[in-house]
Amino acid sequence: MAFSDPAVVLLSGGLDSATVLAIARDEGYDVHALVVDYGQRHRHELEAAQNLAQAAGVPFRVMPLDLRVFGGSALTDDIDVPHGRDESEMQEDIPVTYVPARNLIFLSLALGFAETIGAKDLFLGVNAVDYSGYPDCRPEFLTAFQACANLATKAGVQGQPFAIHAPLVDLTKAEIIQRGVQLGVDYGKTHSCYDPDHQGLACGTCDSCVLRRRGFEAAGVADPTRYTA
Amino acid sequence: MAFSDPAVVLLSGGLDSATVLAIARDEGYDVHALVVDYGQRHRHELEAAQNLAQAAGVPFRVMPLDLRVFGGSALTDDIDVPHGRDESEMQEDIPVTYVPARNLIFLSLALGFAETIGAKDLFLGVNAVDYSGYPDCRPEFLTAFQACANLATKAGVQGQPFAIHAPLVDLTKAEIIQRGVQLGVDYGKTHSCYDPDHQGLACGTCDSCVLRRRGFEAAGVADPTRYTA
Repeated sequence: MAFSDPAVVLLSGGLDSATVLAIARDEGYDVHALVVDYGQRHRHELEAAQNLAQAAGVPFRVMPLDLRVFGGSALTDDIDVPHGRDESEMQEDIPVTYVPARNLIFLSLALGFAETIGAKDLFLGVNAVDYSGYPDCRPEFLTAFQACANLATKAGVQGQPFAIHAPLVDLTKAEIIQRGVQLGVDYGKTHSCYDPDHQGLACGTCDSCVLRRRGFEAAGVADPTRYTA
Repeated sequence: MAFSDPAVVLLSGGLDSATVLAIARDEGYDVHALVVDYGQRHRHELEAAQNLAQAAGVPFRVMPLDLRVFGGSALTDDIDVPHGRDESEMQEDIPVTYVPARNLIFLSLALGFAETIGAKDLFLGVNAVDYSGYPDCRPEFLTAFQACANLATKAGVQGQPFAIHAPLVDLTKAEIIQRGVQLGVDYGKTHSCYDPDHQGLACGTCDSCVLRRRGFEAAGVADPTRYTA
């Protein structure tokens, strides 16, 4: 890689993608963040994404994509988010917070953006260890997407292949946090909760909060999050 | 297939997708049309899509997706559309009307919609013969997408695989038109031109008009289109 090659980072405002942003910058990429405004109920996540990009001095674009046109998920519809589940319960089934085809849609958008700005590298914060049961967080999906991307695009067929980077895919939440702390990530700026109160305070009991809390505990890092429970 | 299984048809308002809509209905599917409003300069195409769905009595959803956030194509940006090229010139390179990752993005959205409504079959009107040089109209891309879709989704990993149907992929434009005429498609309701005038009249000389005109000629079917040149 030549210094300052452009790369696209999918930034959600969560702990994982904030860490990926720091990793991509640490590797020397000229990072362009893509934030997808998909009508998520927790708008605080979107604000967190924009704050993280601005704090890092990284250019970002917000792509509005109203997945509420389809519905079908607790993250976009008026379906209750589960609370108080432990990690073994989370692994049992794909949860109602699954958004149909979300990572495929987001990666496709990131690919279109990357091709437009001449970037060959796409980064995203998926994680197959504490992955909360989502099929589109698995390495085999990412491998298939990369093959598909290189058949779908002008750059791909003209011999300038895209690479999908998922540097967190094999890390535990604790390892992700430790890596981020090394890189100076301010986790106080990130938002993980699926069901925050109207001020944006984290519930502390949804799957995402449970994984986050246990991650900080296991990492031996003070959790900057304010939880309501 | 049980009678009236649901299917999603990507409907653009062009000749090809109008034919695919008719084919999917003829095969007995309960068709749901997905129209992507991607900020295309030629809004007449979008109106045509809605008119086609309504005329067929098919439910449709319009997904707004402003690809102008990225730019990079003559179809979404202020880049001149080429005129007066013959088919051999069109084959030489990928044209400026290429929209980065468009079919991948559209198929990903169609997949999310399909999963939400419980459909397993996705139809789109890509064509690899008169394909005007787009990489994402080739069968190898569609095969890769189908594999990716079945790894990306809850339905796919739970053993209810998706199938991508591209019934026009090996047909010439003339064969597509002949098939559509057999099925009663009203091609007067379709819009192909990349560069219509303000009333929506087709230019007659962009790549899409050239392919359309020659298709009707070769099919021996009267072309209902009003061209300005």
